[in-house]
Amino acid sequence: MKKIVAYPGTFDPITNGHLDIIRRGANLFDGLVIFVAKSNEKHPLFTFEERIEMAQCLAKEFNNVSVMPLEGLLTTCLKENNIKVVLRGLRTMSDFEYEFQMALINKKLYPDLETVLMMSSSEFVFLSSSLVREIALLGGDVSKFVPPCVGKRLKRRPANNGRGLCI
Amino acid sequence: MKKIVAYPGTFDPITNGHLDIIRRGANLFDGLVIFVAKSNEKHPLFTFEERIEMAQCLAKEFNNVSVMPLEGLLTTCLKENNIKVVLRGLRTMSDFEYEFQMALINKKLYPDLETVLMMSSSEFVFLSSSLVREIALLGGDVSKFVPPCVGKRLKRRPANNGRGLCI
Amino acid sequence: MKKIVAYPGTFDPITNGHLDIIRRGANLFDGLVIFVAKSNEKHPLFTFEERIEMAQCLAKEFNNVSVMPLEGLLTTCLKENNIKVVLRGLRTMSDFEYEFQMALINKKLYPDLETVLMMSSSEFVFLSSSLVREIALLGGDVSKFVPPCVGKRLKRRPANNGRGLCI
Amino acid sequence: MKKIVAYPGTFDPITNGHLDIIRRGANLFDGLVIFVAKSNEKHPLFTFEERIEMAQCLAKEFNNVSVMPLEGLLTTCLKENNIKVVLRGLRTMSDFEYEFQMALINKKLYPDLETVLMMSSSEFVFLSSSLVREIALLGGDVSKFVPPCVGKRLKRRPANNGRGLCI
Amino acid sequence: MKKIVAYPGTFDPITNGHLDIIRRGANLFDGLVIFVAKSNEKHPLFTFEERIEMAQCLAKEFNNVSVMPLEGLLTTCLKENNIKVVLRGLRTMSDFEYEFQMALINKKLYPDLETVLMMSSSEFVFLSSSLVREIALLGGDVSKFVPPCVGKRLKRRPANNGRGLCI
Amino acid sequence: MKKIVAYPGTFDPITNGHLDIIRRGANLFDGLVIFVAKSNEKHPLFTFEERIEMAQCLAKEFNNVSVMPLEGLLTTCLKENNIKVVLRGLRTMSDFEYEFQMALINKKLYPDLETVLMMSSSEFVFLSSSLVREIALLGGDVSKFVPPCVGKRLKRRPANNGRGLCI
Repeated sequence: MKKIVAYPGTFDPITNGHLDIIRRGANLFDGLVIFVAKSNEKHPLFTFEERIEMAQCLAKEFNNVSVMPLEGLLTTCLKENNIKVVLRGLRTMSDFEYEFQMALINKKLYPDLETVLMMSSSEFVFLSSSLVREIALLGGDVSKFVPPCVGKRLKRRPANNGRGLCI
Repeated sequence: MKKIVAYPGTFDPITNGHLDIIRRGANLFDGLVIFVAKSNEKHPLFTFEERIEMAQCLAKEFNNVSVMPLEGLLTTCLKENNIKVVLRGLRTMSDFEYEFQMALINKKLYPDLETVLMMSSSEFVFLSSSLVREIALLGGDVSKFVPPCVGKRLKRRPANNGRGLCI
Repeated sequence: MKKIVAYPGTFDPITNGHLDIIRRGANLFDGLVIFVAKSNEKHPLFTFEERIEMAQCLAKEFNNVSVMPLEGLLTTCLKENNIKVVLRGLRTMSDFEYEFQMALINKKLYPDLETVLMMSSSEFVFLSSSLVREIALLGGDVSKFVPPCVGKRLKRRPANNGRGLCI
Repeated sequence: MKKIVAYPGTFDPITNGHLDIIRRGANLFDGLVIFVAKSNEKHPLFTFEERIEMAQCLAKEFNNVSVMPLEGLLTTCLKENNIKVVLRGLRTMSDFEYEFQMALINKKLYPDLETVLMMSSSEFVFLSSSLVREIALLGGDVSKFVPPCVGKRLKRRPANNGRGLCI
Repeated sequence: MKKIVAYPGTFDPITNGHLDIIRRGANLFDGLVIFVAKSNEKHPLFTFEERIEMAQCLAKEFNNVSVMPLEGLLTTCLKENNIKVVLRGLRTMSDFEYEFQMALINKKLYPDLETVLMMSSSEFVFLSSSLVREIALLGGDVSKFVPPCVGKRLKRRPANNGRGLCI
Repeated sequence: MKKIVAYPGTFDPITNGHLDIIRRGANLFDGLVIFVAKSNEKHPLFTFEERIEMAQCLAKEFNNVSVMPLEGLLTTCLKENNIKVVLRGLRTMSDFEYEFQMALINKKLYPDLETVLMMSSSEFVFLSSSLVREIALLGGDVSKFVPPCVGKRLKRRPANNGRGLCI
């Protein structure tokens, strides 16, 4: 039986750190499905549709990676698609705590589910979508942190010079 | 002199994890007062009044547990009620850091105050009110995570299927 | 060549913990510039102008400390001012993770930049601007947590008694 | 191509927590090899041979689990056996830090190697070989923490009543 | 029924940090018993007898504190003495992880047992017996870190000037 | 007045991670003194004299770095040399906790002392002397983890193939 793994996230935007996990996960399992969640943020940088398109742009580089939208509970969606493994990347201790809670509660909601974790590569250990958003909004150059198809979209947005966020 | 302990929180909603701490705390001290804080969240799932009612529903199961509303600073409220011990549950490291800061600053504001901590039982280590809220809003079944009197209220609310939060 | 260090933050408000780091940093380097960031919070307690004024009030006590406003990306601003060292205070593990990410990403954005950290003194380990804001809004006395020129301003604001935040 | 995963450790002794990871790992991959390391402890509770035997006793319950001795560097041994995936269990933050360092350094020593992590199930989050050793040495009953074939061996050892270790 | 709490440790030596927890614990419960464990260290600084004597010297200052030797498993000893509450001090995250594991495993060994934690006061957050031992062995002055009856004993020991430990 | 900073450690052996901190520290301060501590390990890989020699070999590359032996308490030694700043590298959370304790206790022993921390560069975040020792002892190639003058010495030692340590 083929092992298909789900890789869920909001991907606002998808970064080189996500791409690293996708590449390694697609190499380890028979197939990988990127689940783009609709997100609970009031003002995401990119719309749900844009985030799905950017994930699809990355998925094309692999022959066993696909993209699905995620509206509702992840475990419900996984049951419907008969996917039993979730892949998550770990960068930091705070990630660890959050993922630990998620793995345990998802197991309660879907006992057949298994959560598998991969450590971030050391060159991406500092990288997060929220940092990329902040730097882009303040007019910084994020081209080294995101794949080309994300970088193009970020450049088309006017920098929010008045926001004044300190990083 | 009787040892009365305060157990403060927003309890939006109160979970089986809280119930576990209440049971163990009520067993250890002469009395326990659940302080339901008005909350700083803009959109709590339950109103202040509902959260107080749910706590009262749980308190009835014990002969030494009562409920009080908390509007304003906890230390001010404890001084007014001559309560000198605060009980808090610990699940994770992030809890630990937060509780450590709270214990130290509350000591500055009320030098007679003592903070006592209990570890979450291992079956509740993943459980938080915010997770319960998210799952309920996405149409998931939270009946195994909350006491019956909370579960009934959650079922009466329509699921927010369009929110699309990934967990 | 003189070693000038930047000490960035939103300082809403500046606390005795910040003052401790400023004093120790000003002693260690030839000059220290407090960079007051415009902030991404929708409703800061103090306006950008007020926060700059309070920092200037503290800076006057030192002969090698000055204040600059920060609108935009920190690394851009530091490059413009030819400042190559950032000073940050560490209180807790969560601080550590955040600062670690910041140090690494700022290094990517500005390879000549060096980040230097100082541990908070033990009497300030619990102290944060957000805690000071919460206590002040709930009518608590924060005079022992902030410098006099901040305390005066906090007293002039009416307490938000109806907010009911539990700490 | 079959995905074979290595599960290395000293297993002094192998516990129910290890068994849980072995079961879940064997379910996720085509094969799992328990690598029993010779250990750097001066006085292991069980000899290298005993630890291998106990692992073999567990492996018999699965049709895709085997046992190999590990003398020398793990990455050298994995290269010789053409195994490219390491499985590790995570219980706590300290585990996380250690595993993070191991995953990164092993990647340096063997760039094709991938490390995959699984969270401990919540009922085993407290369980470690060193705790089992301590309790057994002080005459406590560890039968609920270890598989039967380990329990039998522990019972045959006289308790070290004079050691007086506090747990 | 009187609530008696056990405060176990190796106390090699007992420090001002321990004394702070003893004072606060004795104030919160009806009685407190210091359990001095025989220790698994090969070369403790003080013998089992000396450590018991130093604890007794402190206990005399309180009317509800006593001292008992601990040889063997803590939970066995607590059952024999019908003590159902263990008190532990928390200074740091590493303490937290260790105490969390201990609380959970002791609960398995003795289901009626409750573990209660108190945060270290901020002035003792850095203090540990092992640090005191190291400083004393290198000829440093530890009189501000330990009670007088410990300080006297430490002074009588010749400093191990040749050890050359870096702190 | 010139700012001289002490960089203490056991350096058994000195690694590329240490070298990175030395380079950055020497750039930030007027002078840097590597204090090689005699060490409390019973069996260091390198003798005190060898560790001093290897540090001297590195120091020659800089015009403001020197080496001193450290026998006894660091703070005593710093007072004697009138050095008031200690530099330490941070890789992980466990480092953070240890360094936090050290900074606070050293401040108690020597109130004029300031501790300054630098984050490890991301490519060295996994690197420690103990890992280098383990890999070398098991016959692994550590040449990419240590400076050339350390690598040469490690190669001259016979690998301890029988030790069988799992990493």
